[in-house]
Amino acid sequence: MPKKNAFYAQSGGVTAVINASACGVIETARKHKDKVGKVYAGNNGIIGALREDLIDTSKESAATIASLRYMPSGAFGSCRYKLKSLEENRAEYERLIEVFKAHNIGYFFYNGGGDSADTCLKISQLSESMGYPIQAIHVPKTVDNDLPFTDNCPGFGSVAKYVAVSTREAAMDVASMCETSTKVFIVEVMGRHAGWIAAAGGLAAQKEGDAPHIILFPEIAFNKQKFLTRVKQTVRKNGYCVVVASEGAQYKDGSFIADAGSKDAFGHTQLGGVAPTLASMVKDELGYKYHWAVADYLQRSARHIASATDVEQAYAVGKAAVEMAVAGKNGVMPAIIRGKGKRYTWHIEEAPLDKIANVEKMMPRDFITPDGFNITAKARAYLEPLIQGEDYPPYKHGVPHYAILKKVRVAKKIKKTFKV
Amino acid sequence: MPKKNAFYAQSGGVTAVINASACGVIETARKHKDKVGKVYAGNNGIIGALREDLIDTSKESAATIASLRYMPSGAFGSCRYKLKSLEENRAEYERLIEVFKAHNIGYFFYNGGGDSADTCLKISQLSESMGYPIQAIHVPKTVDNDLPFTDNCPGFGSVAKYVAVSTREAAMDVASMCETSTKVFIVEVMGRHAGWIAAAGGLAAQKEGDAPHIILFPEIAFNKQKFLTRVKQTVRKNGYCVVVASEGAQYKDGSFIADAGSKDAFGHTQLGGVAPTLASMVKDELGYKYHWAVADYLQRSARHIASATDVEQAYAVGKAAVEMAVAGKNGVMPAIIRGKGKRYTWHIEEAPLDKIANVEKMMPRDFITPDGFNITAKARAYLEPLIQGEDYPPYKHGVPHYAILKKVRVAKKIKKTFKV
Repeated sequence: MPKKNAFYAQSGGVTAVINASACGVIETARKHKDKVGKVYAGNNGIIGALREDLIDTSKESAATIASLRYMPSGAFGSCRYKLKSLEENRAEYERLIEVFKAHNIGYFFYNGGGDSADTCLKISQLSESMGYPIQAIHVPKTVDNDLPFTDNCPGFGSVAKYVAVSTREAAMDVASMCETSTKVFIVEVMGRHAGWIAAAGGLAAQKEGDAPHIILFPEIAFNKQKFLTRVKQTVRKNGYCVVVASEGAQYKDGSFIADAGSKDAFGHTQLGGVAPTLASMVKDELGYKYHWAVADYLQRSARHIASATDVEQAYAVGKAAVEMAVAGKNGVMPAIIRGKGKRYTWHIEEAPLDKIANVEKMMPRDFITPDGFNITAKARAYLEPLIQGEDYPPYKHGVPHYAILKKVRVAKKIKKTFKV
Repeated sequence: MPKKNAFYAQSGGVTAVINASACGVIETARKHKDKVGKVYAGNNGIIGALREDLIDTSKESAATIASLRYMPSGAFGSCRYKLKSLEENRAEYERLIEVFKAHNIGYFFYNGGGDSADTCLKISQLSESMGYPIQAIHVPKTVDNDLPFTDNCPGFGSVAKYVAVSTREAAMDVASMCETSTKVFIVEVMGRHAGWIAAAGGLAAQKEGDAPHIILFPEIAFNKQKFLTRVKQTVRKNGYCVVVASEGAQYKDGSFIADAGSKDAFGHTQLGGVAPTLASMVKDELGYKYHWAVADYLQRSARHIASATDVEQAYAVGKAAVEMAVAGKNGVMPAIIRGKGKRYTWHIEEAPLDKIANVEKMMPRDFITPDGFNITAKARAYLEPLIQGEDYPPYKHGVPHYAILKKVRVAKKIKKTFKV
């Protein structure tokens, strides 16, 4: 059997450590030259495959590939592009197989979240039925931490660390100013569907009563009066109140707090934001001086404060994906499995993709305190190991220094173009 | 002459490194036990003096004091409280002198910005005329970087580093997603009166054309059409556009962009935010997918990514303040003076407070490109040295670890209370 090339693509929202997975895939593939030819990366993800726009990673030096470990963002470009079902758009799948065939690609590594797991599974199943078998391996990645089977998802630990550290620092700032100035500080964090990231804000507290005093989860229906009462009680007790609010925080009827439907002076709808909306409530109803922050992309790109555990795991799933491919596996994902002991340990196991695709792992209710405003000891026991350790990038001119990829394109072999 | 005690207070908005200055003051005072007795810190700044609420720093261990170097926020509490003029409120000054006298305080170290320099000068002048001479030394601190004489202000370098690093990371994130997703990213940073912090965002660029593509300064009148045209041009050229906007960005008539006067669904005025307001414009006029972040307190408390140069200088001004006091100085401030050579060097010199109080150092126009949207090479040459080096705090449980101060209070000696 002539050795096959590999295709690697980044999918969906990028993270601080997705390139560490790319590094794991490429470095490991280079160690298995007997079985894996070149690694071609899709320029801007799966779109790169559809357009036959492939980056030849073999043209990048070992040093450049090693530096991917320290680089946030998606080094090869990512995309939000969900392949339709086979019934809806068979042409897309046929195009993928055509491109893979033209470039002798036998391994498909797809680095993403739940949607990508689904695509990966489809490629695995259909390629065979279409007469060109491909080994499709999913490499997990998502700050949302919502993939099943795996104990946690690479990307989450670093955003969790960022949120915990930032909340702790800002809370100390507010505590030192509250006598005459800001009494309420609200920081908005990501997590449209689940409160994993907001929960990580709870790690800022080192003991009972520490900030954050209130966490707003998407899982707990927002009650304005209950919220304001708690803010008031907290300010009276501590002199200040720190709130971590998930962007997905919502009312009982499912409407997001962020979608308050405000309009600017010209009648245009104002873009939401949970933090400013909550700040308005605090100001109007309680009159406290407030400040608010919206971390947005800063949180998921914050490689400068990445969790060393997360970086290590992101690399490990990339490495394991290639090892699974070389071992002949197909339609699987390397999952992170937590050891049973008191001391945190983890290892990689193989998980079947058909059990992963389209399944969302929600945060257990017992991770949230009965009053709905904070995390439990159980949540802390789960979360804390994931933010352990620092893994600082190298710096130059005072900012993180990253290698610049050459991104040499692979010569096209198919005349027909494909519109995406 | 019996040796005198010292009073130290933190004033105004805190920074990532103001406690490094406190560390410099206290450690240096401990080395001059022949001349300086105990260092009493005002609980919540100058208010602590007015209330006779003094923290005895001699009760803190050497290790705790050393750890102040790593701690963001104001360890002893700060306040926004500007003493009135002597004519308006003589009682306040008399109270201060009364408290200082009661506790044998002969040195006054005031750690703050322009307003504090003014207070410090007044204490220095009035105490003598009121028959109880005090040596008043101002210890510079402000993220606004607007004090005269000193080349830069401790606190600024760290917020500058945070903004440069965060902008660089987020810009890379957007670049990797722009093919199918976010095309415009806007990050709002501090600086109500001057664009120093926004300018620091420019350090994210390593070469011509790099993000940020647009910086909005308070110094340059905002022109909506010119802004939108530049955004459009940038997206067409690069595929995406990153904007760093100062909270102080304003229209020609001086009205802040943030004060767009929007109302929520209930008719309440919505709290501003330059970033969401600009995002609305981009969405309504250009239709691009956008994201925005507001760093707020996260930027000035981000000790985890402090500039090593800034930390060193913050410590140095605290140390120098005590050395000046011991040398008999009064009404002065240790200023940071930049060396003339190509390689960045700095040293501390004494600056007279009467030339500092109430003078605001603005950003030179030639730090901003002629089109008003970016920084010049001259600005870069000034800013870059200030963000050099990393000075990481110790970590425990995945978050920065800080000593907890005992904050033992000094027994009150005055019966009369004073209402602040």
